[in-house]
Amino acid sequence: MSQKLTREYLNEILEAIKIRDDDASQLMLESLHPADIAEIYDELSIEEATYLYMLLDPEKASDVLVELEENDREKFLNSLPSEVIASQFIDHMESDDAADVIGDLDEEKKQEVLLHIDDVEQAGDIVDLLGYNEDTAGGLMAKELIRVNENWGVATCIREMRKQAEDLDEIYYIYVVNNENLLIGILSLKALLLASASTKVHDIYSDDIRSVQTEASSEAVAQIMEKYDLVVLPVTDSIGRLVGRITIDDVVDVIREEAERDYQLASGITADVETTDSPARLSRARLPWLIIGLLGGIIVAAVIGRFENDIQINPEMAFFIPLIAAMAGNVGIQSSAIIVQGIASNSLGLESTAKKLSKEFLVALLNGLILSGLLFLYNFFFSDNLALTFTVSASLFVVIIFAALFGTLIPLLLNRVKIDPALATGPFITTMNDIMGLFIYFLMGRILYGIFI
Amino acid sequence: MSQKLTREYLNEILEAIKIRDDDASQLMLESLHPADIAEIYDELSIEEATYLYMLLDPEKASDVLVELEENDREKFLNSLPSEVIASQFIDHMESDDAADVIGDLDEEKKQEVLLHIDDVEQAGDIVDLLGYNEDTAGGLMAKELIRVNENWGVATCIREMRKQAEDLDEIYYIYVVNNENLLIGILSLKALLLASASTKVHDIYSDDIRSVQTEASSEAVAQIMEKYDLVVLPVTDSIGRLVGRITIDDVVDVIREEAERDYQLASGITADVETTDSPARLSRARLPWLIIGLLGGIIVAAVIGRFENDIQINPEMAFFIPLIAAMAGNVGIQSSAIIVQGIASNSLGLESTAKKLSKEFLVALLNGLILSGLLFLYNFFFSDNLALTFTVSASLFVVIIFAALFGTLIPLLLNRVKIDPALATGPFITTMNDIMGLFIYFLMGRILYGIFI
Repeated sequence: MSQKLTREYLNEILEAIKIRDDDASQLMLESLHPADIAEIYDELSIEEATYLYMLLDPEKASDVLVELEENDREKFLNSLPSEVIASQFIDHMESDDAADVIGDLDEEKKQEVLLHIDDVEQAGDIVDLLGYNEDTAGGLMAKELIRVNENWGVATCIREMRKQAEDLDEIYYIYVVNNENLLIGILSLKALLLASASTKVHDIYSDDIRSVQTEASSEAVAQIMEKYDLVVLPVTDSIGRLVGRITIDDVVDVIREEAERDYQLASGITADVETTDSPARLSRARLPWLIIGLLGGIIVAAVIGRFENDIQINPEMAFFIPLIAAMAGNVGIQSSAIIVQGIASNSLGLESTAKKLSKEFLVALLNGLILSGLLFLYNFFFSDNLALTFTVSASLFVVIIFAALFGTLIPLLLNRVKIDPALATGPFITTMNDIMGLFIYFLMGRILYGIFI
Repeated sequence: MSQKLTREYLNEILEAIKIRDDDASQLMLESLHPADIAEIYDELSIEEATYLYMLLDPEKASDVLVELEENDREKFLNSLPSEVIASQFIDHMESDDAADVIGDLDEEKKQEVLLHIDDVEQAGDIVDLLGYNEDTAGGLMAKELIRVNENWGVATCIREMRKQAEDLDEIYYIYVVNNENLLIGILSLKALLLASASTKVHDIYSDDIRSVQTEASSEAVAQIMEKYDLVVLPVTDSIGRLVGRITIDDVVDVIREEAERDYQLASGITADVETTDSPARLSRARLPWLIIGLLGGIIVAAVIGRFENDIQINPEMAFFIPLIAAMAGNVGIQSSAIIVQGIASNSLGLESTAKKLSKEFLVALLNGLILSGLLFLYNFFFSDNLALTFTVSASLFVVIIFAALFGTLIPLLLNRVKIDPALATGPFITTMNDIMGLFIYFLMGRILYGIFI
């Protein structure tokens, strides 16, 4: 049974590694999953990591390498000669992992490693895969799969599958091709298991199969696999020949990364960063939005500047600036979040934009009435300034409606002109709503103070 | 081959359904995947939907039902007699889907449907599953699986598998149990395929297997399956007996929902809502945060109220209120987003809190220097008020550092006291930072104006 990685167990292993106790280290590492060993890596120096790798059998060492974070892997591989990378690691990987690992090396090292791979077929597969963009089906797929001809019998089929299965970690599906290698269907293991030996493949395969072409985007792949609950998705070239397959575990990463990226963008962070990144990198990822926010703040300052006299006469107007700005921002972000998410998960349905806008308008009307009502009650009882009371509540109501409509419309518009709508939710929309909201507030103040005084 | 669901195709089907053209409707529906038919459902009245269901063969109708959204499904099922639900739908579902569907019915209907299920074993499985909390491994799992005894030979194994496979859509793994039904390992189809008929199961199975207990949370299940790249995860009871298995497609939904929930919480939306929900429901989901924001705004107004005289004398102080408030909010949200995400995906690593805080402090120092520097340059050249120039830049610098530290600390503290940290990122943190930021700003203004004038 596998050992769970606890803090205590981790300390024991680190201790064994530090004093170079081969037997104890090896024994403890054997009980761990590659994904857990990859976690240990974070705590080791390059020398200790090299020592650890030499203790693992090559198969497991390769699995650990695949699980490492890109930066760590690059650093580690650069400390090793190309021959070792090719024979100790690449040789034991499936083609998609091998292509990912080699793709991260610099150009010269990449060529060296490729030349040192003994298995020409594997090297060829890797070169093919390196040709695809990382964010497409071609970049996600592996070349290893089980492929049977529709004209084979079940016995031939099983014989051929035994041969092909040696390259594979797991078999989930068997793909059926015709004589031109065009993908025509799928043979489930269940059907194969239930069939008699004399049956032909074309009598038991199913032609109800979904596939993608190599140039499909990784988001499209994720959407298809999620919608149709697929574990493996076959990939064809542009004329329909079977070239590879994508497994769900790689797509789970795409889904997670996409969701995290949207969340980070919405929080005003431009690049994919982790808590473990350097301060300089973290700072660079955050500055762009902060600078936009700063510019927005300067514009807002200029807008309020137009009302300097009003403020000097009625300084209490300034008290509610943050409330108006914050509510405009919050309402805008709420409205856009639902739309951005709907666009990302392709679940917006077939409702038209007009219908969405009118629904947001209704929600805003409802929320606006409740919130400005509450604020009115508060100011009515706790402030003796009737002009201020009316100004703040009336402008809050108008601002909520505008902010909701902007929040809905902007991501939809951005999506229409092919700009990533996740960008709209960040400080961008907040800043816009601040400017609009405070302009409405002070304008309303000038009008209502005129009436009440 | 499957037909893709385009807007044109959809209109054709809707037309055929509306004029009750049985043959055309049936032909078009046959070419569609259940997930696509579920999308059509949105556009139909209850009568049309019932008509559509009667055209589908029971197997496909059940698959479509599983794909429907919960609200729609409930409405549809309530229009049908219990006998029909049991014989037409439940009978063709795997136990986990059946339990989901029945679990949504009201208590009386639930009992009626259960009594009408002919297959006593299936009814028993469903009752067992209904006993688990929806958000645990027990609530996610299905009871159907392939189970072999370690003492069987490969031939017996294949014979037994044929029998068991009839209940299953797909076979991915074969689970190995001992005579006490304790889960002891896994038999891959590859190993079975490569073994000779006389081999015994205990010679070819692998004991390197991960499992969860029924009470494990669905988040824990998702983390394990994601980390170890699993397609199926077996579930045991508290003493290790095999009771079910969870497939990755159900967990992909958990991952997606979790990510969406965090994003919605960060955007100030409390419940799981979709664009298709009613305005009243959308309004209810958004109001709590808006009311918190409103209260925050009222407190901020009170804080600024303490500086009414300062504003009357120097009204230009009011111009930069939104800038200070917005920057405090943006910086706080950036810092907390990284931490919240790290907590959610369990990828915070083993870095200590002190180390994280000191890193955030460095990032804030860097960003603070750059941003307040830029603002200083702007005000220095475009404003002739030196006191204001120094006040705004100095307080921006201090505010950025405080906001970053709060943004890091608050989600970590909430997590420590077992409150969902995703809650911290919303308007809550923004409001707190507004109060703190503007207090610092006006205090600094009083001091610096005193020096400069």
